[in-house]
Amino acid sequence: MSKYWNKKINEAEPYVAGEQPKPGQKVIKLNTNENPFPPSPMARAVLRSFDISELRLYPDTNATEFIEAVAEVEGVKPTQVFAGNGSDEILALCFQTFFEKDSNTDLPVLTPEFSYSFYPVFESFYDIRSKKIPLREGLRLEAEDYVGVPNCGIAIANPNAPTSRTIGLEDIEKILKGNPDSVVIIDEAYIEFAKPYFTAVSLINDYPNLCVVRTCSKSYSLAGLRVGYAIASEELIEGLKRARDSFNSYPTDRLAQRIAAASVLDVNYHKKCLEEIIATRDYTSEELRKLGFDLPDSSANFIFAKPCEGLDAETLYKNLRAKGILVRYFKTAGINDRLRISIGTREEMEAFIAAVSEEVTNAKNS
Amino acid sequence: MSKYWNKKINEAEPYVAGEQPKPGQKVIKLNTNENPFPPSPMARAVLRSFDISELRLYPDTNATEFIEAVAEVEGVKPTQVFAGNGSDEILALCFQTFFEKDSNTDLPVLTPEFSYSFYPVFESFYDIRSKKIPLREGLRLEAEDYVGVPNCGIAIANPNAPTSRTIGLEDIEKILKGNPDSVVIIDEAYIEFAKPYFTAVSLINDYPNLCVVRTCSKSYSLAGLRVGYAIASEELIEGLKRARDSFNSYPTDRLAQRIAAASVLDVNYHKKCLEEIIATRDYTSEELRKLGFDLPDSSANFIFAKPCEGLDAETLYKNLRAKGILVRYFKTAGINDRLRISIGTREEMEAFIAAVSEEVTNAKNS
Repeated sequence: MSKYWNKKINEAEPYVAGEQPKPGQKVIKLNTNENPFPPSPMARAVLRSFDISELRLYPDTNATEFIEAVAEVEGVKPTQVFAGNGSDEILALCFQTFFEKDSNTDLPVLTPEFSYSFYPVFESFYDIRSKKIPLREGLRLEAEDYVGVPNCGIAIANPNAPTSRTIGLEDIEKILKGNPDSVVIIDEAYIEFAKPYFTAVSLINDYPNLCVVRTCSKSYSLAGLRVGYAIASEELIEGLKRARDSFNSYPTDRLAQRIAAASVLDVNYHKKCLEEIIATRDYTSEELRKLGFDLPDSSANFIFAKPCEGLDAETLYKNLRAKGILVRYFKTAGINDRLRISIGTREEMEAFIAAVSEEVTNAKNS
Repeated sequence: MSKYWNKKINEAEPYVAGEQPKPGQKVIKLNTNENPFPPSPMARAVLRSFDISELRLYPDTNATEFIEAVAEVEGVKPTQVFAGNGSDEILALCFQTFFEKDSNTDLPVLTPEFSYSFYPVFESFYDIRSKKIPLREGLRLEAEDYVGVPNCGIAIANPNAPTSRTIGLEDIEKILKGNPDSVVIIDEAYIEFAKPYFTAVSLINDYPNLCVVRTCSKSYSLAGLRVGYAIASEELIEGLKRARDSFNSYPTDRLAQRIAAASVLDVNYHKKCLEEIIATRDYTSEELRKLGFDLPDSSANFIFAKPCEGLDAETLYKNLRAKGILVRYFKTAGINDRLRISIGTREEMEAFIAAVSEEVTNAKNS
């Protein structure tokens, strides 16, 4: 509390990110859904040849080189792409652009009950009413639950986090058709890990109310670079630009634009990394199931697992931490019986499975 | 207008940044107050040795390496420093953190009538009432005009932009003492160009309501990298962190943190560039005065000049543009009789003076 902070800041409940180990600290880091592989060799080449004197000049506000790379790879027009300082910034701008600011109507934004924990932070920070839609049995999202409910907008992560489950394109279309006057955000931070791959980007020319949000942090191994993007109708992209230019006209820097563009264009390397992570995810899921864990089939680079009988999620989280393995545990009622485990390298996941096996054995013997 | 944008975005009047030439376009660019010199050689060394595999991991949210560098150079504690994605982002967070969000009191934020054109954009975007305080004769800011006026906060650029004039520390103290319950932002984007150098940072231990905002864009030649910082009491810094973590927890990227830290620590190179720019500014000011232009003594890396009799600011702006020289012209009544001219290299300013001389001659002969 401070008399110098306004009411909003005094009351804020900020987002809490996953723990970052201190430099030099040796851990197996499976807690923030980072990619275990380095960025593309093409990105490295760009970094090596970058002329630092360029940095004296302001960057291109629209990140043209980057959005053209995205447009090429995703088969859309550059004017249908918007770049930002990570997808968190883009999501924040979406909430400020598309959702209620006129207290006359006072309609809520709909989000899944369990989803990305930044959504409620944005709702509170930007004074937007919120309505959480419960998930069905098995953490399943039911599209019909988002139709016929008065709202000022909808935000859905697909795959959902931390559940790791997806809904299909026909479900997304049901939601878009059922809410023609609302903007529907489909947050595809993890969609590249879905097998088979699909994307709501394929729907943007049919639905002017669809805004797909993406990030370079996960599948492109660029969490440390802060580049995200939105793909949507030109009308929605134009709105995001208005919000950006009311806040910070230069969200992405010159180096980041260049490195991200090169990474997106290196389609083969991207595919190779994804295949390896998907294979390791399937291995990890299988091993955990053998140990009696319960988890849905994951379409992301993490799994969301409930430990076997006799092993409590919070205890397992702490015991793994003591062994130098970081995973994510949410205290939130309804999901506090599970752990979210990012997929690392095959070696890291073998070490993880070995550590979990020990814990299972210890629990059985105690 | 769009039915998908909310009221705020439909009504927004976004910030308009200075024109950026297309890649390859040859111009003398004196319109956005960029530094004509490249970043520090130490920054180049950091870039060359940077291990790109680091980018797969999220950055340090507090940018510890960078804020420690700033703390060392500025003689403050790291806990008194906050890093952001350029000083525009920091200013936006300041407006959201320190200024009115509780409509019960409805007090305005005070800013100079002519100042950084992003302030009114923030006021409108964050629903903060605004009161513009007129400047006195000669674009002079009078500290007494900011005392005894009910307000929810104060934002002053020092040197002011686009006027290029400063107020001294005794004036800043008068404003701080006269408004003990308000946060006073002193936006020092250009202060390093003041001769002799002084800074409100020297007051932060005495005034918990003082927030100094700085940027690496101008004096450190890093406009393209997007790093700014605030220096203030721990209480104010804590408030900014709460706002950041309600919006985007990772505002600065790994490369930017590292390059900015190295630049800040290279004190000698910084000093050498500043001295050269100051000398060129003084040369340019003198030459313009010889041509009959009227301008205040500048403490920034730009000058704000009124053309001589018979030469209109807008015409001069357009004619210079046709000759490949970009300067900034504001259509705003009250300052639309002047041009803001960034200080480039000595060669660039000689070419600028030659072009202006031609225009003066043409105007006299017409």
